Parts: sequence; structure tokens; C-alpha cells
Amino acid sequence: MIRNIYTGKVITLNVDTVLLPNGVTVDLETIRHPGAAAVVPIKDDGTVVLIRQFRHAAGGFIYEIPAGKLSVGEDPLHCAARELEEEVGYRASSFKLLSSIFTAPGFADEVIHVYEATGLTKGRQQLDRDEVLEIVEMPLDHTIRLIQDGTIRDGKTIVGLQAVYIRNVTNR
Amino acid sequence: MIRNIYTGKVITLNVDTVLLPNGVTVDLETIRHPGAAAVVPIKDDGTVVLIRQFRHAAGGFIYEIPAGKLSVGEDPLHCAARELEEEVGYRASSFKLLSSIFTAPGFADEVIHVYEATGLTKGRQQLDRDEVLEIVEMPLDHTIRLIQDGTIRDGKTIVGLQAVYIRNVTNR
Repeated sequence: MIRNIYTGKVITLNVDTVLLPNGVTVDLETIRHPGAAAVVPIKDDGTVVLIRQFRHAAGGFIYEIPAGKLSVGEDPLHCAARELEEEVGYRASSFKLLSSIFTAPGFADEVIHVYEATGLTKGRQQLDRDEVLEIVEMPLDHTIRLIQDGTIRDGKTIVGLQAVYIRNVTNR
Repeated sequence: MIRNIYTGKVITLNVDTVLLPNGVTVDLETIRHPGAAAVVPIKDDGTVVLIRQFRHAAGGFIYEIPAGKLSVGEDPLHCAARELEEEVGYRASSFKLLSSIFTAPGFADEVIHVYEATGLTKGRQQLDRDEVLEIVEMPLDHTIRLIQDGTIRDGKTIVGLQAVYIRNVTNR
């Protein structure tokens, strides 16, 4: 049984009565989210294009990779390409799916599809009125140091950067 | 201004009216969560101790590292040690903080503190009635392949496994 608590602009909150595989029945607060796509944009010289974005829930500006919510029925790859151009003003000739991650499976169904984008060319940045961000470019190696020292803290961003780094280091 | 929509057992849903740094005012659906701790448990021979856990929001069983919510005022390190023993039955002589990640900063304030745990000795597993999981042990190297082929999809789990792998490969 699903009890709808609130339908918002981005998320819906339900309380689901669930029969677990061990026979126990529990009420679980469950956030429904449309899902999202995110992109690690890598320039030909190995530079990564990040953003520093204002996030109310995180209490300020945080480092992230470009990302955005899926529209209804939207192909995640299309969403990734759209957000890459809108948020940081780049187009890419090649997208490769790195992971499709559950961000918070304890209480939310959100999946973020994380891509690597290469073959970048200049497009046109076009921010929404509620997007507050600046573009920050740095070598991939440096992003790994900023993860290790606690400067980069966004989950999807760390997943994407570390995945590209591991592939580069291990050639697989 | 914060408008409380729902106070649940795990999460609280608010709608916050926020003045952004660009002068725009928006209403943002914001999930408040107590935060959590998670652990990558590494045995002396390099084997990683994972779980396959039933997650309603993810639609079934998924691979994860042991993790749990912080109690009010609880030190994340204490929580990590507690969850390690309760979920997989190990104690550890050493914990190292890898990252404190925002899981979904677009709509939630949840932070998960991700640790590496080494020097494992047998303790006593003690599952809650709503926890349905089995323990799965494998070499660290193999977890990286399961991330790359899409088998391991949990965000905090990928962050932790990749971080340990990168430290091992690069010795930093």
C-alpha cells in the first residue's frame, strides 16, 4: 500500500507499507524522484570541467559535475548532453556511461546516470534562474587530491571522477 | 522561512523559501536526514566485506557496504564501528575517514561519513528486524570490475571502494 503524503515540484513523498523478504511488514518513508544525468567533461588535454554550485541543502557552494533532472520520458543520454551545454557551455562528440547509481536507497528511488564526455567543443551556456554556479577547470589528478582532502564532497561527482581516474590508471 | 510538511521516523520534509545568492527567491523541497556512517571493511588479505541488502526504494537486493543512520548526537566513527559489528559481525582495530559525502544535495541534507576499516576480528552480527541482508566477501579488485559492469550501483559504496582502490594503486 502506498500513502501519498506530498507531491512537490521535484520530489514526491510516500509512506509505503512493505512486506520484506523476511516476512516482516514495515512502513517506509519513500521519496520518488524522476532521476537525473550527470557528466564528467574531459578536455583533450585531460582537464576536467567542474562547477561550484550553490546548494541550499548543503548549506552553501559545493563542487559538482554538471547534472540535471530527467524530464518525463527523457533518455538519460539526451539529458546529459543538454545539461552539459546549459550548465558549462560545452558540447561533446562522445559520451560513455560510467555508472547508474542509487544516491540514497534507504529512503529514495533516485538514480543518477553518470557519463564521461569527451571531444568537447564550445556551445552556449544558458542557466536557469535558480541555478547559481561558476565553472572551475582543473587537471583530473588534482580532483582526486581534492576528494582525498575533503574539498570535493558530492557523491555523484566523486563516483564519476574516481571512475575516470581508475580507468586511466589501469587502462581498462 | 521553513514550512514543515511531514515529520517521519527517518526523514523530515520541509519546503524552504530561500533567497539565492543571485537575488532570486525560490521554494525548495528539502529533506532533513540525521546523516549516516558507512564502512569499507578490508581483511588482512585484501578481501572486502560487502552486503547484499533488500532496499525497497531500489526495487530489490543491492550490493552495499555496511552502513547505518547516526543516532542523535552520535559520533560518526562510533556509528561506523557499531554498524560494522551489527551488520557483518566484525570489529576493526583501525578506522580511517575516506570522505564525508552529500548523497543528494539537490533535495536532501544527508551526509554519509565513509570510512575504511582494517585490522578486522570477529564480533557478533545482530540484525534489526527490518534489515534483510547477506554477507558477500570478494577481493577489492573484483569490486572495481563489478562497479564497471554495473553490478554495484550504490553511491556511497562506489565512493568508498574506488577511494580505497586508488589509494592502494597510487600509494597515497
